[in-house]
Amino acid sequence: MHLNHRIEKVFPCLQWIKGYQYSHFTSDLIAALIVTIMLIPQSLAYALLAGVPPQLGLYASILPLMVYAVFGTSRTLSVGPVAIASLMTAAAIQNLGIENQVDYVNAAIMLAFLSGVFLVLMGFLKLGFLANFLSHPVVSGFITASGIIIGLSQFRHIIGIKASGDNLLELVETLLANIGSANTATMMLGIPVLLFLFWARSGLLSLLRYYSAPQKLIKLLPKVAPVLAVILTCILAYQFNLEASGLALVGEIPRGLPSFALPVFSNVSWIDFIVPAIFISIIGYVESVSIGRTLGAKRRQKVDSNQELIGLGTANIASAYSGGIPVTGGIGRSIVNFNSGAETPLAGFLAAIGIALAAMTLTGLLSYLPTATLAATIIVAVSNLIDFSILKKTWNYSRSDFTAVLLTIVITLLAGVEGGVLSGVGISIFLHLYKTTKPHIAEVGQIAGTEHYRNVYRHKVITYPEIMTLRIDESLYFPNTSYLEDQILQRIAERKDLKHIVLMCPAINEIDISALEILESINQYLSELDIGFHFSEVKGPVMDNLKKSDFLEHLNGKVFLSQHQAIEAILQKKYQKAKEKPEFTDFQI
Amino acid sequence: MHLNHRIEKVFPCLQWIKGYQYSHFTSDLIAALIVTIMLIPQSLAYALLAGVPPQLGLYASILPLMVYAVFGTSRTLSVGPVAIASLMTAAAIQNLGIENQVDYVNAAIMLAFLSGVFLVLMGFLKLGFLANFLSHPVVSGFITASGIIIGLSQFRHIIGIKASGDNLLELVETLLANIGSANTATMMLGIPVLLFLFWARSGLLSLLRYYSAPQKLIKLLPKVAPVLAVILTCILAYQFNLEASGLALVGEIPRGLPSFALPVFSNVSWIDFIVPAIFISIIGYVESVSIGRTLGAKRRQKVDSNQELIGLGTANIASAYSGGIPVTGGIGRSIVNFNSGAETPLAGFLAAIGIALAAMTLTGLLSYLPTATLAATIIVAVSNLIDFSILKKTWNYSRSDFTAVLLTIVITLLAGVEGGVLSGVGISIFLHLYKTTKPHIAEVGQIAGTEHYRNVYRHKVITYPEIMTLRIDESLYFPNTSYLEDQILQRIAERKDLKHIVLMCPAINEIDISALEILESINQYLSELDIGFHFSEVKGPVMDNLKKSDFLEHLNGKVFLSQHQAIEAILQKKYQKAKEKPEFTDFQI
Repeated sequence: MHLNHRIEKVFPCLQWIKGYQYSHFTSDLIAALIVTIMLIPQSLAYALLAGVPPQLGLYASILPLMVYAVFGTSRTLSVGPVAIASLMTAAAIQNLGIENQVDYVNAAIMLAFLSGVFLVLMGFLKLGFLANFLSHPVVSGFITASGIIIGLSQFRHIIGIKASGDNLLELVETLLANIGSANTATMMLGIPVLLFLFWARSGLLSLLRYYSAPQKLIKLLPKVAPVLAVILTCILAYQFNLEASGLALVGEIPRGLPSFALPVFSNVSWIDFIVPAIFISIIGYVESVSIGRTLGAKRRQKVDSNQELIGLGTANIASAYSGGIPVTGGIGRSIVNFNSGAETPLAGFLAAIGIALAAMTLTGLLSYLPTATLAATIIVAVSNLIDFSILKKTWNYSRSDFTAVLLTIVITLLAGVEGGVLSGVGISIFLHLYKTTKPHIAEVGQIAGTEHYRNVYRHKVITYPEIMTLRIDESLYFPNTSYLEDQILQRIAERKDLKHIVLMCPAINEIDISALEILESINQYLSELDIGFHFSEVKGPVMDNLKKSDFLEHLNGKVFLSQHQAIEAILQKKYQKAKEKPEFTDFQI
Repeated sequence: MHLNHRIEKVFPCLQWIKGYQYSHFTSDLIAALIVTIMLIPQSLAYALLAGVPPQLGLYASILPLMVYAVFGTSRTLSVGPVAIASLMTAAAIQNLGIENQVDYVNAAIMLAFLSGVFLVLMGFLKLGFLANFLSHPVVSGFITASGIIIGLSQFRHIIGIKASGDNLLELVETLLANIGSANTATMMLGIPVLLFLFWARSGLLSLLRYYSAPQKLIKLLPKVAPVLAVILTCILAYQFNLEASGLALVGEIPRGLPSFALPVFSNVSWIDFIVPAIFISIIGYVESVSIGRTLGAKRRQKVDSNQELIGLGTANIASAYSGGIPVTGGIGRSIVNFNSGAETPLAGFLAAIGIALAAMTLTGLLSYLPTATLAATIIVAVSNLIDFSILKKTWNYSRSDFTAVLLTIVITLLAGVEGGVLSGVGISIFLHLYKTTKPHIAEVGQIAGTEHYRNVYRHKVITYPEIMTLRIDESLYFPNTSYLEDQILQRIAERKDLKHIVLMCPAINEIDISALEILESINQYLSELDIGFHFSEVKGPVMDNLKKSDFLEHLNGKVFLSQHQAIEAILQKKYQKAKEKPEFTDFQI
């Protein structure tokens, strides 16, 4: 590879920097402004969701964005703290039984660091394909269920009660148990803010459209609504000293930028964080690549899944070194970035500068911010994630996809996020394997006027009483060997005048050694009954393997290149008897 | 189903009882005698291996054999305590930290009971197919490794030292640490017995053949050798009061038959036994069905895998109710039963009566039996299980089968039996899935003079620059969707004059919803490039599914019955443009 190419592989930013134009800068700057305005309350909110002090959310929105702009391959992905990663961070730390505030913060940072290391490692080992085991329906189901859990977990802040738990039952139980102790001041502020934010997403849009407001305003106002809510509620809290009436505020946020160092651990072992870090990083990666690909497809921009691992991994390491929580590409934020006209990752870089400026100047004001406002921001944001349409779509298409989604949703709701993901993957794989244990086996015949052979029950075909051709629609491997044997022997028993069996193998992509042993035993059995055992359309890689065994030497029949040749040869009785060298010599490789 | 048939389904014994002849009885009786002689020391030995008092081995060889004769489907399988199930029983109880002798015995009985319940449940739910996930190579590897562990674990009894552990390292470590304290009397007796038993298997046979001894003697003597060893060592131990010199004896065995009741539990919860019971029962089932099938095939007798679950399950429940340890069909014992001429399960029933008589009369003599003799019996028996040839066989045929076997052996040796089995299954499934994530994709062309299309790199074929036909050799499902997309887009990018892509689908047995989404996005992309996107040889079940979605309505091309029709239609430009109803109407179902 040319040196330039290699350097560009390591620093994908060089590709867009080369072709950078002034017009790009204007678009990137506008997108950066909008995203910054949106990111300030979101960063604080996701820190709240993760259970860490608000500045950790801000820190996670500065350096990681810059690093991703250098190493990431998506042009418009917006990286930073996101709802699901924050929820998983909180759940992981609580599961480890860490309650001390200093340890809790260190744990969150350690999770970001280990997630980053894990992602970079996966990237170097080119293991991006492993993420494919999280199927799209399973991820959709998981995101929907997580959205519900997140929304419910934040509701306590809206009405000012204590509630906890990382699954539906615990949350509902603690919410109901404490609902009597709701705080009036919090409710009076929280519920209107929540309603306002929901209205800003739907009612406001209709209103603006009704009055034919300019497009730019229609685009901008709903995004500014959370900022308005933040400013207004800060002022209210300050003016009326609502903290005294029981309204929870964000409280003091250290002014300025983070220092660049990993925290020193004392009471907890980093080993315990490896498994949760793997979960957080894989889920984050899948979410990020999925939105990155969707946006990339709209502008014909490619997202390289292995380089993305490195981009997101370095972003997480950067987040940890600057005292932030785990980050990934956020769905909502990336769509806003894309729709606001971002052309290159410079938009993300500029947004990072915006957040840094906010961290240096706005922290005084933000200390009066009611947590109820942040909770309302989160609830409105995650309400977008909740989407049950995947249930309907999969129900119509395939019951096994539907089962995987439904169980993922139910288990995530009842057992929490990590259990939900694991079950989703497990169920999908199990259902796939289950289908392969009882493969579809079709008896086929010739479609008149062609050399094509199809299922006797679906097509009008020509067959012969002394020949049975079975097409097995699956690779032959250990889970289906005994089914295969039962099926073949049973079908032989039903056909008394049978002289030849042909296994038509276009769908057999592998014959493992367990299956080979079964084929040997079937061959033995058929030899004794003096029934020919033939194969047709065995694919190259499978044939290569069979030749390594002595199966073909003992075969009581022949291997034919095509099904048609097999039938013609058998009918003309031209085939030679067993124990000779198999005819199949036209495999050149 | 006819009532008689139904009753025969529930009681498979009715089938052989109906056709029972006097000549059968003679054969069965002789086989029963030989098996009884063999079973007495083996039953005591496997009780020793399981760590329970010797009578539990005898009890496990009475009622279970009778129950299996009623409910089992194999004619010649010999059920009873076996080496691997006993090893797993001991490992499970030790893992649970049970040391008190009464609890230990109760735990062993509880494991037999739960194994039985689990097997019967599997049988009623017709889940026998699940056992297929233990592939034959993995089971071979597991049995070999278990054989090594069992042999090593018994060696301490031969030289009279303490050693423990359920994996290779622990065993070797404790053996080496204690070898200095070996007991002279034990060694003086143990080592000669061990050598004698090995010689009786090989040297004795050659000797008998050399002197042209009658066939019956050649067959019988090696089987009687362990009994000779038992009798001789009992007499030696009694005569010279070797117990005083440190020789461990079996000790008092309660005379008579077991009482029929489950033990009452006090200190341990039966919940803890569920997982080990599942392991023991599945491994036992696989071992049993595998030997049952092998023997059945030799006499054209069928073994019904679901009924076998019930047969072995009830046998285990019977074992527990009569105070015995987990049982299953033993490999060595079944082969002896078969070779001794057993015709029906009555042989097993008669052997049970033989053991019962022994339990009532011989216990006085057997209390002088040295454990070294039993250990030697076990070592000689399991030495037959150790067989590394599966490594060579799989190495030659397929590296992924080889990897699965090798890792199963290594992990079983290092991490114990349960870990070994789990890893074996996990590795086999993972390797299979891994292969499906990067499926073989062949570009194909027409073999001149036929309507058959094959790989352009393996055959001399006719192709056209404007048409690319790809045959994807795998079902399209979530783990390979992104690989598929990358491959197709990459191949398109390399072919500038491309006008049509045909996906030839004979090997595609499933298109799940994740794959459907990728096909939709590829179709979208190809539409914009004005490249036709066609399918050929889509199988019935897959087509049924595609019709449930709106994919075919948006398809920028057509679905052809055969690849040849696709090429002909495209060449004659007869195909109609997209958005019309797909031509594919000859699917009748």
